[in-house]
Amino acid sequence: MDRPLVGIVMGSNSDLDKLKGVFDIFNELDVPFEVTVASAHRTPDDAANYAKNARDRGIKVIIAAAGLSAALPGVLAAHTTIPVIGLPLEAGPLKGVDALLSIAQMPPGIPVATVGIGGAINAALLAIEMLCLYDRSFEDKICEYRDKSSEKVLKARKDLGDLPTAPIEAFS
Amino acid sequence: MDRPLVGIVMGSNSDLDKLKGVFDIFNELDVPFEVTVASAHRTPDDAANYAKNARDRGIKVIIAAAGLSAALPGVLAAHTTIPVIGLPLEAGPLKGVDALLSIAQMPPGIPVATVGIGGAINAALLAIEMLCLYDRSFEDKICEYRDKSSEKVLKARKDLGDLPTAPIEAFS
Amino acid sequence: MDRPLVGIVMGSNSDLDKLKGVFDIFNELDVPFEVTVASAHRTPDDAANYAKNARDRGIKVIIAAAGLSAALPGVLAAHTTIPVIGLPLEAGPLKGVDALLSIAQMPPGIPVATVGIGGAINAALLAIEMLCLYDRSFEDKICEYRDKSSEKVLKARKDLGDLPTAPIEAFS
Amino acid sequence: MDRPLVGIVMGSNSDLDKLKGVFDIFNELDVPFEVTVASAHRTPDDAANYAKNARDRGIKVIIAAAGLSAALPGVLAAHTTIPVIGLPLEAGPLKGVDALLSIAQMPPGIPVATVGIGGAINAALLAIEMLCLYDRSFEDKICEYRDKSSEKVLKARKDLGDLPTAPIEAFS
Amino acid sequence: MDRPLVGIVMGSNSDLDKLKGVFDIFNELDVPFEVTVASAHRTPDDAANYAKNARDRGIKVIIAAAGLSAALPGVLAAHTTIPVIGLPLEAGPLKGVDALLSIAQMPPGIPVATVGIGGAINAALLAIEMLCLYDRSFEDKICEYRDKSSEKVLKARKDLGDLPTAPIEAFS
Amino acid sequence: MDRPLVGIVMGSNSDLDKLKGVFDIFNELDVPFEVTVASAHRTPDDAANYAKNARDRGIKVIIAAAGLSAALPGVLAAHTTIPVIGLPLEAGPLKGVDALLSIAQMPPGIPVATVGIGGAINAALLAIEMLCLYDRSFEDKICEYRDKSSEKVLKARKDLGDLPTAPIEAFS
Amino acid sequence: MDRPLVGIVMGSNSDLDKLKGVFDIFNELDVPFEVTVASAHRTPDDAANYAKNARDRGIKVIIAAAGLSAALPGVLAAHTTIPVIGLPLEAGPLKGVDALLSIAQMPPGIPVATVGIGGAINAALLAIEMLCLYDRSFEDKICEYRDKSSEKVLKARKDLGDLPTAPIEAFS
Amino acid sequence: MDRPLVGIVMGSNSDLDKLKGVFDIFNELDVPFEVTVASAHRTPDDAANYAKNARDRGIKVIIAAAGLSAALPGVLAAHTTIPVIGLPLEAGPLKGVDALLSIAQMPPGIPVATVGIGGAINAALLAIEMLCLYDRSFEDKICEYRDKSSEKVLKARKDLGDLPTAPIEAFS
Repeated sequence: MDRPLVGIVMGSNSDLDKLKGVFDIFNELDVPFEVTVASAHRTPDDAANYAKNARDRGIKVIIAAAGLSAALPGVLAAHTTIPVIGLPLEAGPLKGVDALLSIAQMPPGIPVATVGIGGAINAALLAIEMLCLYDRSFEDKICEYRDKSSEKVLKARKDLGDLPTAPIEAFS
Repeated sequence: MDRPLVGIVMGSNSDLDKLKGVFDIFNELDVPFEVTVASAHRTPDDAANYAKNARDRGIKVIIAAAGLSAALPGVLAAHTTIPVIGLPLEAGPLKGVDALLSIAQMPPGIPVATVGIGGAINAALLAIEMLCLYDRSFEDKICEYRDKSSEKVLKARKDLGDLPTAPIEAFS
Repeated sequence: MDRPLVGIVMGSNSDLDKLKGVFDIFNELDVPFEVTVASAHRTPDDAANYAKNARDRGIKVIIAAAGLSAALPGVLAAHTTIPVIGLPLEAGPLKGVDALLSIAQMPPGIPVATVGIGGAINAALLAIEMLCLYDRSFEDKICEYRDKSSEKVLKARKDLGDLPTAPIEAFS
Repeated sequence: MDRPLVGIVMGSNSDLDKLKGVFDIFNELDVPFEVTVASAHRTPDDAANYAKNARDRGIKVIIAAAGLSAALPGVLAAHTTIPVIGLPLEAGPLKGVDALLSIAQMPPGIPVATVGIGGAINAALLAIEMLCLYDRSFEDKICEYRDKSSEKVLKARKDLGDLPTAPIEAFS
Repeated sequence: MDRPLVGIVMGSNSDLDKLKGVFDIFNELDVPFEVTVASAHRTPDDAANYAKNARDRGIKVIIAAAGLSAALPGVLAAHTTIPVIGLPLEAGPLKGVDALLSIAQMPPGIPVATVGIGGAINAALLAIEMLCLYDRSFEDKICEYRDKSSEKVLKARKDLGDLPTAPIEAFS
Repeated sequence: MDRPLVGIVMGSNSDLDKLKGVFDIFNELDVPFEVTVASAHRTPDDAANYAKNARDRGIKVIIAAAGLSAALPGVLAAHTTIPVIGLPLEAGPLKGVDALLSIAQMPPGIPVATVGIGGAINAALLAIEMLCLYDRSFEDKICEYRDKSSEKVLKARKDLGDLPTAPIEAFS
Repeated sequence: MDRPLVGIVMGSNSDLDKLKGVFDIFNELDVPFEVTVASAHRTPDDAANYAKNARDRGIKVIIAAAGLSAALPGVLAAHTTIPVIGLPLEAGPLKGVDALLSIAQMPPGIPVATVGIGGAINAALLAIEMLCLYDRSFEDKICEYRDKSSEKVLKARKDLGDLPTAPIEAFS
Repeated sequence: MDRPLVGIVMGSNSDLDKLKGVFDIFNELDVPFEVTVASAHRTPDDAANYAKNARDRGIKVIIAAAGLSAALPGVLAAHTTIPVIGLPLEAGPLKGVDALLSIAQMPPGIPVATVGIGGAINAALLAIEMLCLYDRSFEDKICEYRDKSSEKVLKARKDLGDLPTAPIEAFS
């Protein structure tokens, strides 16, 4: 694989399956990425160093996934000017509401690009949209993905079993 | 079936079972309807066109079902003056609270008639109540439905097993 | 004024100013309406009778406004099959969240068409959209209103002071 | 059983198992009660009549259980001056938060004594505490119940397996 | 004044104005009451003793008002079998939501009769409804109060200025 | 000013002052931008066209600001693969919680980069971080901004009046 | 075991498994502790006495675990000046949000050190951090625990299966 | 003043007035403290270093105050084993709910002792309770403070104007 352009950071590998959507999109669209584990609370120096080194290492976008009082995305963003995408994970009794607020409600000065709770797929797609600014060859990939996504809707429209469906001219 | 009077739009056919309550009511009360799939985000032009064409196609009421950041009802309403009923679906970690707020909290100018989270049956009944304004023959149907609904309560009252129950004169 | 087509019910006349948006729209678009005060809790029989008599009195749509544990819309809906629009008012420490949930989360069988908290304008517009099903002459009125609403956006676009604005071809 | 002193009203008999805690307490403490089904929305006149007749029928306290936009307790309270205990049921995606707010946030003038979500046992105990004002013989029953309840705590304190426990003098 | 039947307890006298609704009702309807200050956290023994002594002192109902993590109603209820009405006060950034949950969500065994946030008037009325079980002479008082309350609605109905109002037959 | 690289879209110009933070940052750091008004609900075709044309017009990032059921960011994102930053505005009784959920909780397939409620400054900074991927000359600007931001903290540390402050070696 | 330094109080032994994290940490790090059951509502005098006696009995820190309207930590704190750690338990339909607010939102004067919902492990670690102030020999224990915790992150970093991982120099 | 035992850290000096309650208590009870400004996001290395150096500098307890997505307390706690008290500040549209969740919902391994939103006084008192473990001379101070606090309640009890008050024997 090429030198990674996206760095994915999570607090523990117990979150791996919640990130499957990211890996799948990146593999499907040939986006070079790397994954690592670094905790804002348990290995804070590692987290800081990863962010500090990221730009020089050629990383263009960071995706940081965290649950509960999800400090990781903000902490990484504090140490780099690379865009950081914050992915709140559904974890614990509050089902990710705590993580969403912890990630989204950043104080002025250090932005985090927040996606929805459990929004792994959108985190990956947002990263690729950002990569298009660096390398226009990603534009075709994202457009293809969107086309497939639209086609699934069209296919679903035909797949309604016995239900009376709207005719094609309804959409023209 | 007669020309459809109600158009039901959902974002993907994975929501089909959540709409069963709508289909059942319409079939039970002989309300002509059509179902389709159109996503405010993945096929936005189709969604817009469906709404734009609806009045001329004879549709009198639209039911739009969506979960998460449920833009579909509002987007359809933006393109038509037919009443749009917004049905927030229980989906994702927030269980439909996000959908309820996304659908109900419309800015002034474009109304959406919101029902409760997962309120498929009420979406259907509300559509029929609106249809009564167009065709009074629906009034009998909705009254019959209500009578059955009340009778179920009366039957339930008699069906309390060994529990001491209130006598009939309690309600006179 | 013509015989009223829309009945507006509120729990106390302290809510009058919160309904100003409704009266303004109805006056602007020549929609015949009547207003009354009836409380689901303090004058429950009046509320019930108003709803029971509404259809025979020629009322086509009811708008019920309430704050706090806003039972009024549901109680009116229980006594009529005319569509009832529930307008949650911003009142008390919870700012209308309690009213929104009380109005929107109706049990299956008795629908209420809920608009947003404090959504007086949308309640009025929704009522008119429903009236179109009864009398198509309202269609022109609602379309005119929408056109004015769009024009306000266009005017606002030109009214951005010293800011660099998007050229007209951006929208073509 | 004696003439019922407590009337228990629920919206449908699907809530029966959620009220088991009430029946158990009343049976255990020999409190004469009756149960019925009456819906604020589907059989509103029955609900109103039940409340209107309650005092004359000898009912001293009403327990009204409801989920979602739980209008039943408030509607009953509107038609009687007997104390009404509102029991919010855990139902639907909001798990009873909607019911709690619908029942607790009553407008000034018509009180409802709200217990916690799913608080069937406390609804029953509160009813008995009120009955003590009418018939002091209930006082002994409620005291006995409390004593048993305290003894369960003491027993639990001794039942901590291998864990190091606090000695008896810690509580003296 | 007669020997007090209702004991009103608050955590500090800074809450006095939030309880004005209680005092007004009791004065208006000649309900003998007493007021005191006792904090569940700052004077816990006083709070406990007040509750323990209440029954023997002739108190029939306790109203406990508290904001924030409002332990007072539950703590009083733990020490008496007199019905305790919990009045959550609007205080602090959460506007009484914390108090509502702290008071309503009591564990099984010790009930508190919760009214709405800031619901001083309803706390007073609920207390009187309970007193009716002890002394039927209060029934007339509460009925008079209700009648006045209904009349205010009727008066408000006539007081709608230039607005088109519903005729009297709408309610018959 | 150079050809705009960032397009800022809001639903009405009443939101202009809430976007002041964006304009200030862009002016301070010499980021070419354009501003426009387009409503997802009142001028949906304009909103769609703006997004469709954006890439060809040279726009690299879109900032979409909206309150209430904030559909605008998602609707723009549906029509372009340029990264869309969603800025939830504090508006209405829910203070932007509705907007945050409407913007953040996008369904899989169409990402929106959400910032905090009222997070105008962070929306601007995030846009510049993305622009760095397109034109590295922005890197120095963002680093300078961060340095100033840190210096403000250091200055604040010295500006604590009479309070006993931590010595410089506390941070070494 | 040595004389207990930490007293753990819960409302019923049905919470025992939710406290397993506390026992495990204390056993692993050789912290002498005792466990007991005392309910703020069902055995309030025992709860008060336990807190009153704690300092003289040599207890240095109390951990109080409770769900729902969790009065226990605050009630214990009211009767002692030993630090009380409040552990909100996930219980009931609100999943511990009620407990979190009941414990955290203490009125000024009586502090409780609140940890997260279900945060048994952190309650134990916080207790040990406090014990370090009394006996510095605990410092080594907590540092060892932290080291193990960091090592788990490092191990997890190597345990990412087939995924492309960040090289070691990313963290230097 | 003596060598500081408590270190107070805030993200900007605009929060100074929200911390006045802390300074007042510490000055009143002669607790040596220091104050500083360090932001988890804008000066992350300073924040980390402050925490790393704290123990060796003789600091026994840290109080960290933050609003919005309040990472500061957790970040400090990640770099030290001194107890960290997290004080969520009321800031922004969510009034501190975001800060409360960000601070309280820490992942297992790194505890933060959270107090209520805006709970400056309790943060200070909790710090002193912890200091008692290090130096018993603080015990008298905290007990004196509590006594004054109780006396204020007693005084308030006598200060109820014309209201009928509970006699002294009610509390014996």
